[in-house]
Amino acid sequence: MTTKQRMLTGDRPTGRLHLGHYVGSIVNRRALQRAYESYFIIADLHMLTTKNSREEIAAAGARAREMVLDGLAAGLDPELSVFYLQSAIPEVAEINTLLQNLVTVPRLQRIPSLKDMARDAGKEEMPYGLLGYPVLQAADILCVKAHAVPVGKDNAAHVEVAREIARRFNALYGETFPVPELVPGEVPTLVGTDGQAKMSKSIGNVIYLSDSAEEVRRKVMAMYTDPNRVRADIPGRVEGNPVFVYHDAFNADRAEVADLKERYRAGRVGDVEVKTKLAAAINAFLEPMRERRAEYEARDGFVERLIVEGTERTRAVVRQTVHDMREAMGLNGIYAGFRRACGVPVG
Amino acid sequence: MTTKQRMLTGDRPTGRLHLGHYVGSIVNRRALQRAYESYFIIADLHMLTTKNSREEIAAAGARAREMVLDGLAAGLDPELSVFYLQSAIPEVAEINTLLQNLVTVPRLQRIPSLKDMARDAGKEEMPYGLLGYPVLQAADILCVKAHAVPVGKDNAAHVEVAREIARRFNALYGETFPVPELVPGEVPTLVGTDGQAKMSKSIGNVIYLSDSAEEVRRKVMAMYTDPNRVRADIPGRVEGNPVFVYHDAFNADRAEVADLKERYRAGRVGDVEVKTKLAAAINAFLEPMRERRAEYEARDGFVERLIVEGTERTRAVVRQTVHDMREAMGLNGIYAGFRRACGVPVG
Repeated sequence: MTTKQRMLTGDRPTGRLHLGHYVGSIVNRRALQRAYESYFIIADLHMLTTKNSREEIAAAGARAREMVLDGLAAGLDPELSVFYLQSAIPEVAEINTLLQNLVTVPRLQRIPSLKDMARDAGKEEMPYGLLGYPVLQAADILCVKAHAVPVGKDNAAHVEVAREIARRFNALYGETFPVPELVPGEVPTLVGTDGQAKMSKSIGNVIYLSDSAEEVRRKVMAMYTDPNRVRADIPGRVEGNPVFVYHDAFNADRAEVADLKERYRAGRVGDVEVKTKLAAAINAFLEPMRERRAEYEARDGFVERLIVEGTERTRAVVRQTVHDMREAMGLNGIYAGFRRACGVPVG
Repeated sequence: MTTKQRMLTGDRPTGRLHLGHYVGSIVNRRALQRAYESYFIIADLHMLTTKNSREEIAAAGARAREMVLDGLAAGLDPELSVFYLQSAIPEVAEINTLLQNLVTVPRLQRIPSLKDMARDAGKEEMPYGLLGYPVLQAADILCVKAHAVPVGKDNAAHVEVAREIARRFNALYGETFPVPELVPGEVPTLVGTDGQAKMSKSIGNVIYLSDSAEEVRRKVMAMYTDPNRVRADIPGRVEGNPVFVYHDAFNADRAEVADLKERYRAGRVGDVEVKTKLAAAINAFLEPMRERRAEYEARDGFVERLIVEGTERTRAVVRQTVHDMREAMGLNGIYAGFRRACGVPVG
C-alpha cells in the first residue's frame, strides 16, 4: 500500500506524441511520477466534446495505444504510472453529473480556452458538454481524490474550477476531497519546425517521438530559420530561431551549441551544418526512446494489458469515491431506506 | 412481454400531491397508463439542480414515498405503472454525460422556464447543472427509449430538446432512439385557494390529496372569492372565482353547480353555502382516494417495495440502453479492443 499522494494528468487520445509534448508535459510527468502515485487518464469522453463522429471514436483506440506507447518510450514507468481509459469507468460520468450543480454557467464562460476550443473545432455555438469540460475534468481529478495536477498556462484555469468544486462539495457535504494542488511545469509551447508559435499535429510542423532517424533528418533539413540570412556569411539571429530553440532543448553537447550560436551570429556557419548537427542531436536524444519502444512493442499485448489493468485498478478507486460522495450527500440513504422498509438487503 | 409503447413521466420528490397536481397531471397520467407501458420517475437528481443541501436530500426519501402513495391513492395502478428512483440508476448519469455534447448552450439558454427556476431558487447565477436540466430530462426519456411524454406548457420546451437530442444521436450514430412524442394534456395551473394563479406548496394555498375532511373544510371556508361581494345579496362574479373553478373541477353534481352559479350571479346565495357545498364536494371527490391510501398504508412496505422493484426493472432497461448507445457510438469498441489484444475476455 502506497502512502504517496496521488497525481492525475493525461491527454485526450489524439495519437502520437511529438517533441512539443515531450518538452511540454512528458519531461515534467516523468519527474513527478516518483513523487506521486500517478494516474494517467486517456480522456476519450473529453474527446467527445469536440470530436464525436463515429470515425473519430473508431480511431481513438489506436491513438490511445500510440499515446501510451510513446509515453512509455519517453520514460514513463509502467511500474509507477496507472494508465486508464476514461470511458471504461462509467462512475466518472456519475461524478460528473453530481458535480454539475456546484458551478455556475457564468463561471465557466469566463474561461477563455473553452471559446478557443469551440472555435478551433469549427463550432458556431458552444456545445453544452464543451462548456462543462472543466466539470468533467474536475470529475477526473476528484474521482481518484488527486492531491496534485500538473498544469501549464492552458489548463490552470480548468484546475482552478476543480479546486472550487472540491471546496464547495466539502462545504456542503463534509470533508470528502483533498483540494487538488496545481503543480506548475507544463509548458505546452515548443515552436514548430515552420517557425510557428506551437508544434501542432493539425499544422503538420511536428517531429514525432516515433519518427525514424531519416524522417527526423528530412524534417530538420527543411526547417525554418532566420529568413534574413540568405547566405551563410550574413550574421544570423539566434534568439527565437527554431533551429537554435531545438538545439537548446535537445542537443546534449552544450559546447557544440555555444560554438554554433557564436558562428551563426558572426556569419561563419552555414544552415546545412547547423541543421545536420541538430538532426544528429535530436536522433541521439530519440534513440533511447526508439529502443524502449521496440522493447515494449516486442511484448505482445503489453500496452493493452497495461491500460486494462490500470483501468480496472482505477475503477476500484473511483467506485469507492462515488460511494463516499453519495454517502456524504445522503443520496445513498434514499434508496437504502426504501430497501430496508421492504426487507430487501441494503448494500 | 408487453407490446405497448413506453411513456415516461414523473416529478421531483417534493412531497405530497395537491389538487393542482391532480388536475394538472395525475388525471392525465391515469388515463394514459393503460395505453402505454408507463414509467414514473422520482427525479431526485433533478432536485439537486436547485435544492442540493443535505437537509433537502435527507427529506427526499419520505417525500418520494408520499408522492408515490398519493399517486396510487389518486388512481395510478401499481400493476400498470413502474415507479423508479432516478439516483439509484447510475447509468442515467452516463447517458446524461454522453448526451451533453449533442446540444448547445445558446439552445438551452433560449428556454425561459430555466431562468424562472433559477430565480425561484434564489440563484444569482445559473448553475451549470440547471442549464442542463433538459439534457438530464432527455437522459430520463431516452434511457427507457420512451415513445411518449405527457406535456403541458411548462415542460413542452424541455421535451423538444429531448426530441432534438434523439434525432441528433440517431443521425450521428444510427437509429437508436424513438423520437419521443409530446402528449398534450398536462395543465399545471389550478388557481390557489387564495385566488393566486397557481396552487403551490411554497405559497401554502393548497389542498392536499391527503388532507382530512376537516382540513379540507377549514381551507375551503377560508377561500378567496369575489372581493367586491361584501354581502350575500350583491351579485357576484363566477368567472375566475376560485370557489367556482373548484366547483367546476371537483363537484360531480353539475345541477348543484349550475344552481349555485345562477344564484351567485343574482346575489341570492351566501358564500357560506357555496363553500359548504364545495367542501362537501371535494371531500366526496377525495374520499375514494383516502380509502385507497388507507389500503396501501395498511400493507407494510408496499410503497417501498413498489419503488425498489420498479427501480430494478427500470435499471435493467437502462443498462441495455447504455449498451446500445455505446455500441452505436463505437465507444465499447475502444476498451473491448484493448481487452482482446491482451487476452482478457470481452463482454
